[in-house]
Amino acid sequence: MKIVITGGAGFLGRKLTARLLDRGSIDIAGQKREISSIVLFDRVAADWNDSRAKSIIGDIGDHGDVANLIDADTGCVFHLAAVVSAQAEADFDLGMRINWGGTRNVLDQCRTAGSVPRLVFASSIAVYGGDLPETVIDETPLTPTTSYGSQKAAGELMLSDFSRKGFVDGVTVRLPTVTVRPGKPNKAASTWVSSIVREPLNGVDVTCPVRPESPMACMSPRTAVDALIHAAGIDTGALGASRSVLLTGPRVTAREMTDTVMRLGSGRPLGKITFEPDPDIQRIVDGWPRASRSARAERLGFAADRSFDDIVNAYIEDDLKP
Amino acid sequence: MKIVITGGAGFLGRKLTARLLDRGSIDIAGQKREISSIVLFDRVAADWNDSRAKSIIGDIGDHGDVANLIDADTGCVFHLAAVVSAQAEADFDLGMRINWGGTRNVLDQCRTAGSVPRLVFASSIAVYGGDLPETVIDETPLTPTTSYGSQKAAGELMLSDFSRKGFVDGVTVRLPTVTVRPGKPNKAASTWVSSIVREPLNGVDVTCPVRPESPMACMSPRTAVDALIHAAGIDTGALGASRSVLLTGPRVTAREMTDTVMRLGSGRPLGKITFEPDPDIQRIVDGWPRASRSARAERLGFAADRSFDDIVNAYIEDDLKP
Repeated sequence: MKIVITGGAGFLGRKLTARLLDRGSIDIAGQKREISSIVLFDRVAADWNDSRAKSIIGDIGDHGDVANLIDADTGCVFHLAAVVSAQAEADFDLGMRINWGGTRNVLDQCRTAGSVPRLVFASSIAVYGGDLPETVIDETPLTPTTSYGSQKAAGELMLSDFSRKGFVDGVTVRLPTVTVRPGKPNKAASTWVSSIVREPLNGVDVTCPVRPESPMACMSPRTAVDALIHAAGIDTGALGASRSVLLTGPRVTAREMTDTVMRLGSGRPLGKITFEPDPDIQRIVDGWPRASRSARAERLGFAADRSFDDIVNAYIEDDLKP
Repeated sequence: MKIVITGGAGFLGRKLTARLLDRGSIDIAGQKREISSIVLFDRVAADWNDSRAKSIIGDIGDHGDVANLIDADTGCVFHLAAVVSAQAEADFDLGMRINWGGTRNVLDQCRTAGSVPRLVFASSIAVYGGDLPETVIDETPLTPTTSYGSQKAAGELMLSDFSRKGFVDGVTVRLPTVTVRPGKPNKAASTWVSSIVREPLNGVDVTCPVRPESPMACMSPRTAVDALIHAAGIDTGALGASRSVLLTGPRVTAREMTDTVMRLGSGRPLGKITFEPDPDIQRIVDGWPRASRSARAERLGFAADRSFDDIVNAYIEDDLKP
């Protein structure tokens, strides 16, 4: 069985690919399936020293590029390709083309695949915004306050309707801020959540662009990959009208993040952290959920990080060069 | 100042046009503006014996047809064009093209108009669905269970985001079931709500396709037109992140509707009403709100029908041939 990962060369795509190659099989809608190939669709090549991983370069916003990507042998599509939050805010047309148009292209292709593949869509808690409760829960209405969040929310609605019509068997997971990302900062308004952990642990000084008391709902990449794979396996009959599942992300302030880094990184040569709030970033971040807790995700068997210690330790174990 | 009405030849479009021609002016964002012309965009011609009303025939789902419709002189666009619920359910592609694609085209055109027009979008309480409270309120999350509802909900999200970005100054009104519609039944799953009033009052027998105890949230065309015009005038600064306003619709069962007709129509030669539930219609209707009540709409000054008596009397006064 073939698996397709859009955004397959990205940070989460690479982690997911590594896990799937390592496992060799995956549960799709409750059935164990052997993985014969993983197609990694992205703007750039994804290089793997494994004959099962196949890189396809293309533009998710281009209907023609996405055509033939998904076929009757495709058991599962992980749709991760996206323009991140601050970039979608700065370039509205790009966000509409990739975040909305790309999701539409994937849905259309699943519909014509000749099978009804499981589609796992990586949405975000950025679908919530504005005047939010201290903790976002399953019943919290969607009120996006960014173009990124609006485009993800529209994609969720369409995924639910395409699924209800039987064109695809979709599941959306609303990911909290996934941190710690290895590598360089990206254009997400939340990239500092990774930077203020990653840079100090690598001995590099870093500036935090939000106030120390700013909270975020967080999830480790390890738990995010667990959630994507778990979403491929669940019985979607239990989901009801909405195929969206909010995932649980504990509340952590920027100050708690840096304190955790100092504590768990003690004994290493740590970079220095300076707080210099940027009004644009602060405004976007202030509109986002401060914590999320989903009883529905728990009932469906999704795991969550318990604390920021878990998240920093996952980075140290999985990504930090010794 | 020019006004554009998409779906201008439709039932609500005609009622809105008549009212606007009669008034001669309209408040747009709190400012009184003289109406120099009303452009009625629809698939079919809209004939008016008034030089201010101009009919343009086109396809709202065709980007080229919508181009140049909205210009710098356009103070307000009423976007009413839509494929109705049962039709969008039967022909998914048509619904996506018109309800989603058409709304996208209107948003795109407003953006390039050279002004920032007020856009009033007629959405529907079909954006709610599934396991609903007895009365839908402002805080009820959107959980559409039809393609029509999903497409309207996606349009609402985009209208809010286009407005936040300053591309348009939009307001969405979520209309309850608008009844009584004069003329012939249409392809809406709710068309019976009009038929079971209209046909008996015109001396015609009618079959009701839902069980007598089935409730609906209702609004008269008169109140719906009031709401559209009121939405053009309000201060959108008071709306917050979401530009959507739920409108209040009292709960009326099919049996209460027919009882009201019998009572208010006594003395007329009334047609006979027979109940013959159709499973497909019943299933769609069962998933819709049974009543809606919006404190936000009340705060913003939107009126509501108090009872089904109001609604039937509005039909008798406005539409029934003497």
